[in-house]
Amino acid sequence: MTNTNASDSWWTHSAPTPCADTATAATERQNQLTKPPGALGRLEQIAIQLAAIQKQVKPSLDQVFIAVFAGDHGIVDEGISAFPQAVTVEMQRNFIKGGAAISVLAKELGAALEVVNTGTQADPEQLPGVIHAPIAGHTANFLQQDAMTKAQWQQALELGRASVQRAVDQGAQLYIGGEMGIGNTTSATAMLSSLTGISVAEITGPGTGLNQHGVQHKIRIIEQALDRHAGSLDSAAAVSRILGGFEISALTGAYIAAAQAGLAVIVDGFICTAAAAVALKINPSIEPYLFYSHCSAEPGHRRIIDYLQVQPIVDLNLRLGEGSGAATVLPILRLACSLHGQMATFAEAAVSEKLDP
Amino acid sequence: MTNTNASDSWWTHSAPTPCADTATAATERQNQLTKPPGALGRLEQIAIQLAAIQKQVKPSLDQVFIAVFAGDHGIVDEGISAFPQAVTVEMQRNFIKGGAAISVLAKELGAALEVVNTGTQADPEQLPGVIHAPIAGHTANFLQQDAMTKAQWQQALELGRASVQRAVDQGAQLYIGGEMGIGNTTSATAMLSSLTGISVAEITGPGTGLNQHGVQHKIRIIEQALDRHAGSLDSAAAVSRILGGFEISALTGAYIAAAQAGLAVIVDGFICTAAAAVALKINPSIEPYLFYSHCSAEPGHRRIIDYLQVQPIVDLNLRLGEGSGAATVLPILRLACSLHGQMATFAEAAVSEKLDP
Repeated sequence: MTNTNASDSWWTHSAPTPCADTATAATERQNQLTKPPGALGRLEQIAIQLAAIQKQVKPSLDQVFIAVFAGDHGIVDEGISAFPQAVTVEMQRNFIKGGAAISVLAKELGAALEVVNTGTQADPEQLPGVIHAPIAGHTANFLQQDAMTKAQWQQALELGRASVQRAVDQGAQLYIGGEMGIGNTTSATAMLSSLTGISVAEITGPGTGLNQHGVQHKIRIIEQALDRHAGSLDSAAAVSRILGGFEISALTGAYIAAAQAGLAVIVDGFICTAAAAVALKINPSIEPYLFYSHCSAEPGHRRIIDYLQVQPIVDLNLRLGEGSGAATVLPILRLACSLHGQMATFAEAAVSEKLDP
Repeated sequence: MTNTNASDSWWTHSAPTPCADTATAATERQNQLTKPPGALGRLEQIAIQLAAIQKQVKPSLDQVFIAVFAGDHGIVDEGISAFPQAVTVEMQRNFIKGGAAISVLAKELGAALEVVNTGTQADPEQLPGVIHAPIAGHTANFLQQDAMTKAQWQQALELGRASVQRAVDQGAQLYIGGEMGIGNTTSATAMLSSLTGISVAEITGPGTGLNQHGVQHKIRIIEQALDRHAGSLDSAAAVSRILGGFEISALTGAYIAAAQAGLAVIVDGFICTAAAAVALKINPSIEPYLFYSHCSAEPGHRRIIDYLQVQPIVDLNLRLGEGSGAATVLPILRLACSLHGQMATFAEAAVSEKLDP
């Protein structure tokens, strides 16, 4: 018997229900602001959702915490990535030194940034400033065996929870998780096909830049792996453990823990959506806490977004990961809060309201 | 003979061609940054376009100037708006006092904000802080006669040019124009139908909030007006003068003058797109300077965007005007510049590049 989704595990505990009374008060406020009702569209909905999450009629997102989880994948032995595995370690150094996209974004946005090594070949001296918590040098090659043992999978979830705890300790009002892991679109694609029943061919894309031949090879590898594990992929937890990655499972743990702590989350792109899809299946109570940042250029993402019936905030053809898409939309959420909190009401501004129809 | 589009008028003078060499250098830089080539999607294209406009390999948008043009419309006599005309004046006061959406956005974005009264019933004492330049109390009712005389139309274009001059004097790197005018979706819809040949019914929407009956009435009024003026709507300038508004024509003048001054522009929603469509027909050289912020909830906007073959940056169901949609996407353009300017190259960060295919 598996205990990876046992009902007494922390990741199954319900997140608090967002406050309906605050949502009502925030909606009433929106309808009194000096604009035609509804004219700020999704910005109004975002502000109301954040109000309910934060239990504040005027929510704010000044304090934002970004964590990037890095992990390596045994499946790269099958030649499914356009970049060498060394990049996972090299990019961790780049995150810390400030040269990566997410580093620049975090600085510009005034957000805290941490990098967690969930399992790469790097040693601590090699990457000063990175939080070193490697579960192993990499996951196992899931074409041959389970990517993770049950203990490893739980350890990965815990890494996400520990990151959220640091965010809470720093007073964060919103959590962004990012990922870095050569090979991880292969893992995420396998997970998403298994979770949704959508065919592998329909959602497999180039990742960091495979050519058409490479994509066909990637499809075959994933299909073979799904055949191999067909009898075991009987729960979201199993899918995550058998096909996933340390960094992807850490994100799953982080999303659940953030919602449990009452923190809003912005989900990044394709990989993060796979982590979120698992989190939602394991613990549906977290759903109101998740904002979806963008529709990725990774071609399977649109299909998955439609399946999940969620609405990303932008569609800018991004496909970088690292949390970069989530960070890019943060200003839109912040402006939604500013508009909601600072605009005058019709009464305050002495502006005439709508005529009777 | 009309001289509203005479070839020696300032609005027909070409904008400088964005620098192709700088665009090439910026593209080369993008391809060396530590990410898979193209992985930042439209953010890369935005940075390269701004580089070419600013003739700087690393462009920046620290200094942003927002102008809101307010004007009243004679066509409101036909009962085509859900809000009373008094709102045009009341909202100007709200812009200046800081309670309107664009006021909050300008403050949050650190942008300069000016409000120009292009023609409403307000007197200067009533609205301290507003730039008073009323061409008349309102345009003429274009169901009965031309909305503007030729002199008035040129005066409106000049108001836009003068605003851009103030932006240039303040060192602005980007210009946002907004509008406020009860009745101006009726004017913009008439203009866009005439300019594009798309039927009135296909692009007429509720504006600030008409019900279905109101929308049907609005369609009939616009159709009647287009019939009345059919023989005269023989150029974009004529369409703008006969069906437009003081504030819409000021925006047309501002877009042209901004491009002539080498300033990037973010176009707001439905009304601003009508102003831009006229500007582009009068002076096609300005095209590379225009960024389109969002697809409006005003139902005709998508149709017009497709007709113009432009790609708005976001689609957030906004329909407020005031320049609010343009201001909302400004952080995305700013982040595009930051990523482009501050990310490390593969060489700088000692990160491995893509494998040979």
